[in-house]
Amino acid sequence: MGGESKILMGAGPSNCCEKVLDAMSNPILGHLHPENLMIMDEIKEGIKYLFQTQNPATMCISGSGHAGMEAAMCNLLEDGDVVLMGVTGLWGNRAGDIAQRYGADVHYVRARCGYALSFEDIREAFQTYNPKVFFIAQGDSSTGVLQSFISDIGDLCRRFNCLLVVDIVASLGSAEFLMDEWKVDVAYTGSQKVLCGPAGITPISFNQRALNKIKARQSKVKSYYFDITLLGQFWGCFGTSRIYHHTVSSTLLYGLREAIAIVCQQGLKNMIRRHIECSYRLQKGIENMGMEMFVPEPNHRMSSINVIKIPNGVDWRKVSQYAMNKYFLEIAGGLGPTVDQVFRIGLLGENATEEKVDLVLTILREAIQNTSGITLNERSKI
Amino acid sequence: MGGESKILMGAGPSNCCEKVLDAMSNPILGHLHPENLMIMDEIKEGIKYLFQTQNPATMCISGSGHAGMEAAMCNLLEDGDVVLMGVTGLWGNRAGDIAQRYGADVHYVRARCGYALSFEDIREAFQTYNPKVFFIAQGDSSTGVLQSFISDIGDLCRRFNCLLVVDIVASLGSAEFLMDEWKVDVAYTGSQKVLCGPAGITPISFNQRALNKIKARQSKVKSYYFDITLLGQFWGCFGTSRIYHHTVSSTLLYGLREAIAIVCQQGLKNMIRRHIECSYRLQKGIENMGMEMFVPEPNHRMSSINVIKIPNGVDWRKVSQYAMNKYFLEIAGGLGPTVDQVFRIGLLGENATEEKVDLVLTILREAIQNTSGITLNERSKI
Repeated sequence: MGGESKILMGAGPSNCCEKVLDAMSNPILGHLHPENLMIMDEIKEGIKYLFQTQNPATMCISGSGHAGMEAAMCNLLEDGDVVLMGVTGLWGNRAGDIAQRYGADVHYVRARCGYALSFEDIREAFQTYNPKVFFIAQGDSSTGVLQSFISDIGDLCRRFNCLLVVDIVASLGSAEFLMDEWKVDVAYTGSQKVLCGPAGITPISFNQRALNKIKARQSKVKSYYFDITLLGQFWGCFGTSRIYHHTVSSTLLYGLREAIAIVCQQGLKNMIRRHIECSYRLQKGIENMGMEMFVPEPNHRMSSINVIKIPNGVDWRKVSQYAMNKYFLEIAGGLGPTVDQVFRIGLLGENATEEKVDLVLTILREAIQNTSGITLNERSKI
Repeated sequence: MGGESKILMGAGPSNCCEKVLDAMSNPILGHLHPENLMIMDEIKEGIKYLFQTQNPATMCISGSGHAGMEAAMCNLLEDGDVVLMGVTGLWGNRAGDIAQRYGADVHYVRARCGYALSFEDIREAFQTYNPKVFFIAQGDSSTGVLQSFISDIGDLCRRFNCLLVVDIVASLGSAEFLMDEWKVDVAYTGSQKVLCGPAGITPISFNQRALNKIKARQSKVKSYYFDITLLGQFWGCFGTSRIYHHTVSSTLLYGLREAIAIVCQQGLKNMIRRHIECSYRLQKGIENMGMEMFVPEPNHRMSSINVIKIPNGVDWRKVSQYAMNKYFLEIAGGLGPTVDQVFRIGLLGENATEEKVDLVLTILREAIQNTSGITLNERSKI
């Protein structure tokens, strides 16, 4: 393609660094070649560290984050199973759509748009619906809402004999997440968000409670492709010999392995701290310009996806195009419930740096002023 | 990873050439960036040429060939729909497993192992079951059987108001395939076989009859990820504006685009002729060594996946390991119904050359002689 590399500060994908990109031009490996299996094993160990879990059933879905969500739902759910979706933006609804397609009896507990769910709301919904599975996104990339007290939800789920599925697609690496300690039964993340790996290969983990529910199914999982029992055999999760399930892309494995290695090298805690500090700097800059964050409560803001209200008189499309055309910088618009209402700025992995924060603030200011004629507060100069 | 690049002459994946590998280290693009959409459009046009179709609903599934099979099944089938699987090896059974998972009423018409189906068998099964969907693999990579007279099956399907799904994962580019002329309603191929692209991105095409069946569904497609109506909107197939469906991997798109461009440059007919000629040379070499092809009828042999009976006293694992350890050459064993019975030699794309045929014959002979002590016919010297 040639041309300038873009700076991807939308909601993802993020940029892959040179090391990751280079790895993806390595020669192709067969899906059962020992070298490929070794890379898969290294990725598994990496995911365990990133998720803070010891689950043997830790692997990747050969598909996007949506495929991870679908794999979680279709393995756990059978026709008529009651499932409760915590909704803090688009993703709870999407999980509900997917669960309904697979035949579940879907209910929702919804937060006011831009707010996290309260523990009270969740507990009441549990009492009303007595769900077998509860879903929540730790971070909802459409609203920028970060759901806290997942550990308490984990305890609640145990009391109700319910499985807890947590979507950490956009939050992993930018907020603390302790899968085992918090009693999360299934979690999956995006490869192309904070991890800065390639899209199309989605880390996922199931604990023993989740596997027990799957083992006790009355019916086969409706999807062969997402069947964790078969996929986990291929990924060597169950101590049995590897069986061909599908042809995994060695190219994506190469890329993901390097991306995970980079995070491991930095250390998860450092990674999270850096994202929080950069997001704080960005939020300060936004507020200094006289603009507002979409999520009113600072503790409920994601640090990876920063969602900003569009000021009156500003056309986000023009702003976004200006930034892309002049600076090859991506700033995203809204999604789902926030369409046409917000900018979304991703501080994802290698783009979570002070320099990138200052760059995006400067370009955002210039883009708004040049496309709308609005003068923003002088304080915004960094 | 470093190290020597392997020569992948198993059943796939095949090698990607330098141009394809290089393309995959290009900078990441967002899934809705104009450059990414342009690549998707080019891929669509390429697939139309390769499939010999004008179907607007031509796109890629972000998943392996298995995902393509699943997408075909779950979009066309509703609970209780009668589907008939033509079985010439593993893949008809796999399609049956998938269709059953999705709630269909599955029946089979089975060929004797190593043989193609006769038109009579298929017609009788149609009369018995009156299926809404018929599945057949043009080439079954587990047995090496090539199913001919697909055009006649297309006519039969029209008479029975049945949809025809043809799996061309391992055959496309190595045998003639005329989607529109033959009245094939759904077809999908592997990116990592003859096309020599990366695994994980699967070309698929639906014609209007297939779309009509999907439009008339009483229930939603059970899979969101494989829902062709949503995916086709993202791929710009229906003349409506593009809607985000999932994050497609720009890396895999880069690779697939280059792989398709290389085939287009060569011309489909030349490509097919080269595969047939190379396969013929290989078969001659095999027979000269005193070995036998698994498929007795020469006209029913695939040219891409060449399946050879293991001579008595030969351990295929040792042969395969010898070839890999000494020459970095992959020769595959059997799969499904042919496990432990055959070698499978892939002449896939860039490996379908006289030189590679002679190389694999020489190494196979040496490997068999060195691991089993058996002396093969002298005639086998090329």
